[in-house]
Amino acid sequence: MRVVLSQLNYHVGNFDYNTSKILDAIKNAKAAGADLIVFAELAICGYPPLDFLDYKHFIKRCIQEIEFIAKECDTIAAIVGCPSINPEPNGKNLFNSAYLLQDGKISNIIKKTLLPTYDVFDEYRWFESNRIFSCVEIKGVRVALTVCEDLWNMDDDPLYRFWPMDELIRQKPQLMINIAASPFHVQHVSERKRILKKNVCQYNLPLIYVNQVGANTEILFDGGSLVYDRNGEIISVLNSFAEDTLTCNFDILTGKISVEREKLNTELTKFESIHDALILGIRDYFSKMGFKKAILGLSGGIDSALVLYLGAKALGPENIHAVLMPSEYSSDHSISDSLKLVENLGCSHEIIPIANVFNSYLEGLATSFGNLPFNVAEENIQSRTRGTYLMAISNKHGYILLNTSNKSELAVGYGTLYGDMCGGLSVIGDLYKEEVFDLCRLINRDIEIIPDNIITKPPSAELRPNQKDSDSLPPYEVLDAILFKYIEEQKGFDQIVNEDFDKDLVLRILRMVNANEWKRNQFAPILRVSAKAFGRGRRMPIVAKYLG
Amino acid sequence: MRVVLSQLNYHVGNFDYNTSKILDAIKNAKAAGADLIVFAELAICGYPPLDFLDYKHFIKRCIQEIEFIAKECDTIAAIVGCPSINPEPNGKNLFNSAYLLQDGKISNIIKKTLLPTYDVFDEYRWFESNRIFSCVEIKGVRVALTVCEDLWNMDDDPLYRFWPMDELIRQKPQLMINIAASPFHVQHVSERKRILKKNVCQYNLPLIYVNQVGANTEILFDGGSLVYDRNGEIISVLNSFAEDTLTCNFDILTGKISVEREKLNTELTKFESIHDALILGIRDYFSKMGFKKAILGLSGGIDSALVLYLGAKALGPENIHAVLMPSEYSSDHSISDSLKLVENLGCSHEIIPIANVFNSYLEGLATSFGNLPFNVAEENIQSRTRGTYLMAISNKHGYILLNTSNKSELAVGYGTLYGDMCGGLSVIGDLYKEEVFDLCRLINRDIEIIPDNIITKPPSAELRPNQKDSDSLPPYEVLDAILFKYIEEQKGFDQIVNEDFDKDLVLRILRMVNANEWKRNQFAPILRVSAKAFGRGRRMPIVAKYLG
Repeated sequence: MRVVLSQLNYHVGNFDYNTSKILDAIKNAKAAGADLIVFAELAICGYPPLDFLDYKHFIKRCIQEIEFIAKECDTIAAIVGCPSINPEPNGKNLFNSAYLLQDGKISNIIKKTLLPTYDVFDEYRWFESNRIFSCVEIKGVRVALTVCEDLWNMDDDPLYRFWPMDELIRQKPQLMINIAASPFHVQHVSERKRILKKNVCQYNLPLIYVNQVGANTEILFDGGSLVYDRNGEIISVLNSFAEDTLTCNFDILTGKISVEREKLNTELTKFESIHDALILGIRDYFSKMGFKKAILGLSGGIDSALVLYLGAKALGPENIHAVLMPSEYSSDHSISDSLKLVENLGCSHEIIPIANVFNSYLEGLATSFGNLPFNVAEENIQSRTRGTYLMAISNKHGYILLNTSNKSELAVGYGTLYGDMCGGLSVIGDLYKEEVFDLCRLINRDIEIIPDNIITKPPSAELRPNQKDSDSLPPYEVLDAILFKYIEEQKGFDQIVNEDFDKDLVLRILRMVNANEWKRNQFAPILRVSAKAFGRGRRMPIVAKYLG
Repeated sequence: MRVVLSQLNYHVGNFDYNTSKILDAIKNAKAAGADLIVFAELAICGYPPLDFLDYKHFIKRCIQEIEFIAKECDTIAAIVGCPSINPEPNGKNLFNSAYLLQDGKISNIIKKTLLPTYDVFDEYRWFESNRIFSCVEIKGVRVALTVCEDLWNMDDDPLYRFWPMDELIRQKPQLMINIAASPFHVQHVSERKRILKKNVCQYNLPLIYVNQVGANTEILFDGGSLVYDRNGEIISVLNSFAEDTLTCNFDILTGKISVEREKLNTELTKFESIHDALILGIRDYFSKMGFKKAILGLSGGIDSALVLYLGAKALGPENIHAVLMPSEYSSDHSISDSLKLVENLGCSHEIIPIANVFNSYLEGLATSFGNLPFNVAEENIQSRTRGTYLMAISNKHGYILLNTSNKSELAVGYGTLYGDMCGGLSVIGDLYKEEVFDLCRLINRDIEIIPDNIITKPPSAELRPNQKDSDSLPPYEVLDAILFKYIEEQKGFDQIVNEDFDKDLVLRILRMVNANEWKRNQFAPILRVSAKAFGRGRRMPIVAKYLG
């Protein structure tokens, strides 16, 4: 049996686009004489469709599309992810299903059992869990077909009380196929390979695994679809962060699987994969929203420098515009470093000093402020003036504003809401400051693209004379370590203090993180590259008092 | 058996505060000779604790508190909501439980079976579902004890495949007790009574129902705890939107329930309940965040007028400050109407014209804007200038900015992000424009508090000469009707058009709603009074193409 793995980039709710992609792939696979083509989880509507699933109209459209595609599956069979309607009155109205299309019709609907409802996932919000298990017959092969999470209940302390493969294995399948929408984060690719291998070894079956690729808002799918032989060896890996296709052969008699073109990409390092993931994230945000041009404020600091580089890579330097907005507190190198970077990248720029607007605000506030000393109020006016300038140019010329905040400052609230926290998309909001440095060093590995001075000078917001981040924050290596333990590892105060951090410092930082939930709640979507990003995957109360 | 219903206002994560409230209530009930006191669902930590539940430290603290409280339950028994740890390795690590405390210790832990995971609820994110059913014995009475949603699977098309009371009824209980965290929305109070009555009639048992009261961020709990006799009659209703307590007697021999002080409040009308809910929401946001003073921009329009009134009611007129920021496009009555309102309410105010800042921006943008015509860019600069002024005064003097956007404009994106969309809390973001008018009319029922001219003049953003909302939007009665069908009723394009609305208009409005998801995503929490508010309860993709 010749099987094509079709790893595509879907657009949520864009049925014409998704269906046309799927039909093209089917046509090509038929022409190449394939018996079966496999697409990803919820390929019909893209992942995650979220509360569009509550709309009957949306579901009706999904089913129309799958029925239309089924008609093309005459000589070939296809497996396509699509919601299905729960025929029983009890339970949620939908299942998250894998449709098997063959002989020009829908031949089987295999429903997902394990519904991820944690981090960025909300599947039990819309889907009922399957409780009936059945293998499918495709061109004489008995296949254990499952959807994504159904293979993931493998370790100690399992999250679910069901094991779909334990049920299916009783029916003596010859092959496992899993369709997925498994998003990227820096530890997830190796974790995914470990879990899939564990399945292959436990059930002693070859496995074909097809993932989505592409970004839908903050969620980045890396692709990296896989073929395993029954010994747990990876025979082929599809591209990371790009569409890809692969044909493999399953020998019904021997139960052996082989590929026509062996592909074993070298695994990307942490920062190589973050680099590629963020570029894909920017590119898909723009292309799927129908935008072309980006704008950002270039401060002379490392964060905006990195975002300008990533934006230029993703969209082309001709499509990104940098605005330099010096104040009386800006150092000379802020301008000179920024100009050097703009030149290195080949982007356009303009310079707009903020002093006049800032002073106009202060005049308007003279009665209100009286003789009160300069404080965060005046700092924030400067930041908000810059935000307003950027949004004005964006509104006038149709740019989308890229936000430049990093995860460390978002965590402790070291940023101005409606000021430097403005923007339609947060590019590096899931990178701690130390990771920002690491990624810049990778970018400069061969040639100095980001001027060295930007990387080596001490970070500063430049909102008052001689300000440095270190005036109000601990060194970033200490801050980032504590933040990582609290946010990613979900350790509490006691646990972190026990790991030899200063008690008062830990308490101060944890309180800052909790106290700034209200600010992050009004922040742009953040391209997610860690196991625990701010945003959809981390839901904390705003009005709460804990450690505070 | 003398039973006290204790309807309290909890603060998420504030263990000292919650425990001390619970202990006070136990002490009073003991002094009054009660046998049992009943508190709400997750009373220990407040509802919803969200991802604090992922922190072991947080759970440990919950259990410490419940163990501490148990020691006080010697002569009295208590039922208290608190998370419990799943002792099995399989499944999620926690249960959402009702703890029965008696004889100075934890006597039973009853786990919730039906886990709401829709709208604002995410319970399956953290909790495993119960599958073992057992009544509890309290002072010789066999009680079917359940947690909130466990009584809600009553209608056709049930959301779950389990019926906890069907299991418990086999053990022949004499009384039902349900502890809840059931939030308010305008249809929910009558719906709750209908469902509870259905349980009482179906199982032929009296029911004691204890709800939370108070606001935690956007979620407003109305309280309204209830006692039903076995015939389905309500014997007593506790206060709406305020803490309350009630003692009832359950006669073990006859199975009859009676109250010592009958309370049958007249049911509030829709706008009376919205009025009280919003005031509670503002008050609790401020008191639980530790804030005292509010600020807002008073435009002369009806939205900011209503928010000023509600803020003054909630916090006292001495704690709310209005800022009038006229531009060259402001009409004279904007100032005169605002001044009249401020005088009626007794709030402080100041006037800051925005022309100077606006012109400074335009000077800075002269090169960028060139000769391009005045458009939304210039409109937004005005709105953002006002936002920056408000935030500056807020930062300098410690005010919290109340947002004044209504649901209709949030839906279609008729507002400026980082401008009039600024603010820490959205007070009327769940009221359609027509509902804003209705609520103002209720407020003016007896005496003109909000100047009539504010209510009767045509709505305008006043960002360009002679602008009216009706220049770019259909009449609000049409707009609101279409929005309600799309948002609350989750009807699709075809269904709405079939209800006799203009096809092009429906398409335009639905596209605007979908296209402005990115703006709403950066918006403040909205006090929730409808069955489908923007925010946590409505999760739509930002990058998506549907009907667009």
